[in-house]
Amino acid sequence: MRSMASSPSPKGIAAIVGVGPKLGRSIARKFAHEGYTVAILARDLGQLSRFADEIAREEKAQVFAIRIDCSESRSIKEAFEGVLSLGFVEVLVYNAYHPLSWTPTSFSDIRLDHFEKSVVVSSVGAFHCAQQVLPGMIDRGRGTILFTGCTASLNGIDGYSDLCCGKFALRGLSQSLARELQPMGVHVAHVIIDGIIGTPRGTLPSTCQQSSSSHQRSSSSSVGEQQHAGGGGDGVMDPDVLAQTYWQLHMQDRAIWTQEIDVRPGGPRLC
Amino acid sequence: MRSMASSPSPKGIAAIVGVGPKLGRSIARKFAHEGYTVAILARDLGQLSRFADEIAREEKAQVFAIRIDCSESRSIKEAFEGVLSLGFVEVLVYNAYHPLSWTPTSFSDIRLDHFEKSVVVSSVGAFHCAQQVLPGMIDRGRGTILFTGCTASLNGIDGYSDLCCGKFALRGLSQSLARELQPMGVHVAHVIIDGIIGTPRGTLPSTCQQSSSSHQRSSSSSVGEQQHAGGGGDGVMDPDVLAQTYWQLHMQDRAIWTQEIDVRPGGPRLC
Amino acid sequence: MRSMASSPSPKGIAAIVGVGPKLGRSIARKFAHEGYTVAILARDLGQLSRFADEIAREEKAQVFAIRIDCSESRSIKEAFEGVLSLGFVEVLVYNAYHPLSWTPTSFSDIRLDHFEKSVVVSSVGAFHCAQQVLPGMIDRGRGTILFTGCTASLNGIDGYSDLCCGKFALRGLSQSLARELQPMGVHVAHVIIDGIIGTPRGTLPSTCQQSSSSHQRSSSSSVGEQQHAGGGGDGVMDPDVLAQTYWQLHMQDRAIWTQEIDVRPGGPRLC
Amino acid sequence: MRSMASSPSPKGIAAIVGVGPKLGRSIARKFAHEGYTVAILARDLGQLSRFADEIAREEKAQVFAIRIDCSESRSIKEAFEGVLSLGFVEVLVYNAYHPLSWTPTSFSDIRLDHFEKSVVVSSVGAFHCAQQVLPGMIDRGRGTILFTGCTASLNGIDGYSDLCCGKFALRGLSQSLARELQPMGVHVAHVIIDGIIGTPRGTLPSTCQQSSSSHQRSSSSSVGEQQHAGGGGDGVMDPDVLAQTYWQLHMQDRAIWTQEIDVRPGGPRLC
Repeated sequence: MRSMASSPSPKGIAAIVGVGPKLGRSIARKFAHEGYTVAILARDLGQLSRFADEIAREEKAQVFAIRIDCSESRSIKEAFEGVLSLGFVEVLVYNAYHPLSWTPTSFSDIRLDHFEKSVVVSSVGAFHCAQQVLPGMIDRGRGTILFTGCTASLNGIDGYSDLCCGKFALRGLSQSLARELQPMGVHVAHVIIDGIIGTPRGTLPSTCQQSSSSHQRSSSSSVGEQQHAGGGGDGVMDPDVLAQTYWQLHMQDRAIWTQEIDVRPGGPRLC
Repeated sequence: MRSMASSPSPKGIAAIVGVGPKLGRSIARKFAHEGYTVAILARDLGQLSRFADEIAREEKAQVFAIRIDCSESRSIKEAFEGVLSLGFVEVLVYNAYHPLSWTPTSFSDIRLDHFEKSVVVSSVGAFHCAQQVLPGMIDRGRGTILFTGCTASLNGIDGYSDLCCGKFALRGLSQSLARELQPMGVHVAHVIIDGIIGTPRGTLPSTCQQSSSSHQRSSSSSVGEQQHAGGGGDGVMDPDVLAQTYWQLHMQDRAIWTQEIDVRPGGPRLC
Repeated sequence: MRSMASSPSPKGIAAIVGVGPKLGRSIARKFAHEGYTVAILARDLGQLSRFADEIAREEKAQVFAIRIDCSESRSIKEAFEGVLSLGFVEVLVYNAYHPLSWTPTSFSDIRLDHFEKSVVVSSVGAFHCAQQVLPGMIDRGRGTILFTGCTASLNGIDGYSDLCCGKFALRGLSQSLARELQPMGVHVAHVIIDGIIGTPRGTLPSTCQQSSSSHQRSSSSSVGEQQHAGGGGDGVMDPDVLAQTYWQLHMQDRAIWTQEIDVRPGGPRLC
Repeated sequence: MRSMASSPSPKGIAAIVGVGPKLGRSIARKFAHEGYTVAILARDLGQLSRFADEIAREEKAQVFAIRIDCSESRSIKEAFEGVLSLGFVEVLVYNAYHPLSWTPTSFSDIRLDHFEKSVVVSSVGAFHCAQQVLPGMIDRGRGTILFTGCTASLNGIDGYSDLCCGKFALRGLSQSLARELQPMGVHVAHVIIDGIIGTPRGTLPSTCQQSSSSHQRSSSSSVGEQQHAGGGGDGVMDPDVLAQTYWQLHMQDRAIWTQEIDVRPGGPRLC
């Protein structure tokens, strides 16, 4: 089930659930870069293993690829048995969602089982993953749980009822957990990504190139685009930069914790 | 499956899903009083049949009791075959939810299957019921769908993660559907009930009695209470009065439609 | 200062502040129609007097036109001395705002005094008017204060910083007052008008005519239009229908009170 | 008017408006520490000069104390002539507000001139300060404007109508400006401080001491406390840690910008 194995890190494990070629991979890379042992989880174990190898090599870190299907409670339980065997899970990032499609879908055309799966992956899956790692966090009085929201977390969007339903749910879950878990020393935060995520720019030949990824939009992307036209630059967010936000949230001093932060494409490039 | 049967009403059918002794019953009574044929749906067919008989007798209306389990897609489909056989469903009210318990539950103590059922009943059940009645509404270019939210729709609450997750989801669904369906002539609105629902006062002996129901609180009630202490009167809302809000939303002229309204206990009684 | 005078009504006075040819006039007419003595207040006393005469004649009601400049505290105080001399002010509706212009204005081009006046009229003026009528309401343990918001109450809008600043402020004021005054029996509510207000349709020749008023848009109108394209019908709201919402809020039973309601153009006409 | 003078910094100026012994001072110190020339502005020039001397000495930075009264447009204009003479203002932080009192004030007891001043300082003052620095930022296509909100920015609070009115207004202003200025390369963000700010802990003798400042609560503090009981630790936020949030917002890569972030007391100390 894992593509690599080793002894647990003293720093604890960062488990990233919902890892594709953009945000999840960048967050995993960031935590690996900062010295964490990282477990990355998604459905496509082949792709996941390539990411794990790549990050392990580039960041000289321990990275474990573990298959998970967040619509299946048994799969979540088994996957986290693997994660927890690595050591104390200090950080959980939950990114997973299961879009109906990459384009707007008329309400009448949505199949019930698809709708339910989409909502369950966005919200119940997040609950279930959090429940796996919480006993360890509560025991130690520390830990960070970060949930990924999007434009659809804040306002209903025509043609994306499943996404809105699931992402609103995740926000409600996040707020409830934050209030309950903060007094126990566990930091719960919700990141609202209000726009399109592109591919990392760092690896492309230098300054001011256009994103090569405008055709590879995520579902939340096309949604975000309608809502926040007129953003800066090419309007596409670099996932490596987004990953810094996740890192900063985890690094927040106990004196203050953020519960919710939004991020969107910034101003035009200066060059 | 029905406790009464008769020919369809020319006015169309009002289907009320999630009917207990308080809000659902009062809404059903109000629509019956206004001349609608009413279908009331819930899990407890015995209680439902008593309500149907009572409303039919008192309001001289046609009232059908149909069993539904909103956590089961097959049950929803079958129940609505019954509802749709009565005629055009002009109004759908969705009240159903499946609380984990009547008191706060620590996150770690929640069983996954209970959490999932609670979220699914609040949100996916609403989607599924709406999908059953929409083809008829879209065909005729008219119809009203009313969703019931509560305090937990707006802010996360410690100990009520399932309720917040489900009720946030329902709000996201409601907003998405409103944007999609309004241009087709279907009115979708979300009623946020921010407080405790008591029993109807109209039937009690005369003026300024205390609510007899302070011990019969609904789950959303105890939640609301913490949030809005210091409301007026005894702080308990009369469901017969709440039902008027549903009726007024349905009666709104096409010139303006409300998407969201809150209601809470009003000022102290004048007497 | 008044264009008409007479003995106070037993029902109390409805004072409508910010009365132009659309919403304010329609609200005044509705309360007059329901038997209230009405005071209408605005800067243009000539227009105001014509409205007062028209409503008095058509509704066989007492209507008083009183000049007010909501940017001047002295003017507010004097105007309300007139209003209060008519009797108990049972209802206050505050509609007034002072737009910078009818089109978006770049932040850098806004004159400070214009900005300040716009914000003060939207918010401080509302505070001041409420303060004039509150002693009477608190004494009697009853009264209704209704504030008019718009699309700009909920989200910042490029080019309308003064409107957003003032309307956000009014919403904050409304929520604070509601919490403070509800236990004293005073109902405070905020109506979010999310779209364009046209001219009343009732007086135009029969069915399904287009609004004659698409060129007479209010400032909140052009704002609303951008945000909620694809609404129903011609997308213009009939102020006579909007006025019913104000009336219904005032008529709410003490068992439940609404603090916030939105209204927007409804579905397409059926004809 | 200034307590120190020197040649402009190549990095640009950070202007902090509303500097008392807690948050403003900590933000000023952070930007000084990071190499910025800092202008601190408030009404009490004596206290301000002591802060300027202290920060200049400890951080080996240029710090200018400039008197400002944010309720007076002339004072704002004059103060910023001083600030702009120092060089390009790259960062503006607006913290100023003018509380009616440190305890809840009944609506009926508020004097109009106090209410107006409070609202104007929170919102119109922010507009005016932003307008002074924007031409330079727009010219260069870069700059950061950070507004400080609090618990009262999000929900009305009984007894704090002036604070809610002003802080809601500031949030609306912030959202409008962000949309307008982001395409011009200017980053506008709103920090919601949801809780009590204490005094910096760094200067106290080491680990796990209680905050010495529980009696020195700011107005937003007592407000926050009611809303968010049960936070972690002693429930008091260290302003030096809060200042890091302002610095991180300024440092955000142009690939992503945050418009809104909340911060509140974190979990219990580990010691």
